[in-house]
Amino acid sequence: MPDALGDALERLWRVIEARRGADPATSYTAKLFAGGNAKIAQKLGEEAIEAVIEGVRGNRAALVGESADLLYHLFVLWAATGVSPAEIAAELARREGVSGISEKKGRPEK
Amino acid sequence: MPDALGDALERLWRVIEARRGADPATSYTAKLFAGGNAKIAQKLGEEAIEAVIEGVRGNRAALVGESADLLYHLFVLWAATGVSPAEIAAELARREGVSGISEKKGRPEK
Amino acid sequence: MPDALGDALERLWRVIEARRGADPATSYTAKLFAGGNAKIAQKLGEEAIEAVIEGVRGNRAALVGESADLLYHLFVLWAATGVSPAEIAAELARREGVSGISEKKGRPEK
Amino acid sequence: MPDALGDALERLWRVIEARRGADPATSYTAKLFAGGNAKIAQKLGEEAIEAVIEGVRGNRAALVGESADLLYHLFVLWAATGVSPAEIAAELARREGVSGISEKKGRPEK
Repeated sequence: MPDALGDALERLWRVIEARRGADPATSYTAKLFAGGNAKIAQKLGEEAIEAVIEGVRGNRAALVGESADLLYHLFVLWAATGVSPAEIAAELARREGVSGISEKKGRPEK
Repeated sequence: MPDALGDALERLWRVIEARRGADPATSYTAKLFAGGNAKIAQKLGEEAIEAVIEGVRGNRAALVGESADLLYHLFVLWAATGVSPAEIAAELARREGVSGISEKKGRPEK
Repeated sequence: MPDALGDALERLWRVIEARRGADPATSYTAKLFAGGNAKIAQKLGEEAIEAVIEGVRGNRAALVGESADLLYHLFVLWAATGVSPAEIAAELARREGVSGISEKKGRPEK
Repeated sequence: MPDALGDALERLWRVIEARRGADPATSYTAKLFAGGNAKIAQKLGEEAIEAVIEGVRGNRAALVGESADLLYHLFVLWAATGVSPAEIAAELARREGVSGISEKKGRPEK
């Protein structure tokens, strides 16, 4: 299951990288890049608000769509700021060694 | 590169599922689940705000950490509301067939 | 100075109440009310993201505009959920009697 | 009713200005100022998320408390970035002359 997600995210990352240099007049992704970091971050924030609202409502179907939007804009923000998926993977791997309630909130345990 | 992220996310999902039934007194993840959807969604929103701020500042290192926090809380919200990673993968795959600037904003093009 | 803000907010509240029953086809405020609590809250969240971003950038002029948007949508959310400005005033007055760093974060001191 | 809110906000503004130079060890407000714009903006964003959630739930009592938190942190952000309440009042007054659904979304009509 998560394998399918990993594959889909890999394709999503490649599409974003490929669209980066496209014409902003015909590619939404290229238009996002052209808007700059603050605009991309704003869109990420807006999609997060929508995911939060659907999560509060327990609206499964809508949460799926908003989550896809959220992941897409997060990836664009990574690409725009020069963050690679490998760095995120390394950060998640690093945290796997850390566990327990005493840890700073928000960090996943092993 | 994205393969490494896919693997890390797969492990993250399994850890979250495994921790779901743990003791909230010793597991941050179990404590989150015990708090319910609205509390988990609130945490997701807070991590998104932090990612937005680091993105605006172009602070790469901090964005990596906040992105890991964001993904972790997003996965917990999926688990809490009964959304599977496979559903997100299917939604992303569905969108791969859709492209162009005419599409509703926020949807990635092929 | 704050008196002028108090007067402006009073007028804003009256305008919102007056527009509540207007035609959603010609009044943005009436359209917001027709959208329901979740949609109004979403707009509030989006304006807050924009205020956060302009605050981080220290962009004074843009923060003024986003703050006005934020206050407007906050007032519409109050009206839609049946919260009166007098209740907010009472809550602020109540907090004036509480002070110190020991208090729950986020509460203003006397 | 809004008069009472105007008075309460005037007092809130004066308290914030007075606490600005206080000891961060004993004043939450002084501690916020010491944290800088990005930290204050982050807190504003977090309170906005909470207000959004209570608005979606239609939880009147909780929305009152979160709204007071939101207004307090918004005022601190204004003070920290050099925005005066008079500027917000002027912006709201300027918008009173503008109306109709054709206007950019998010702007209150007359």
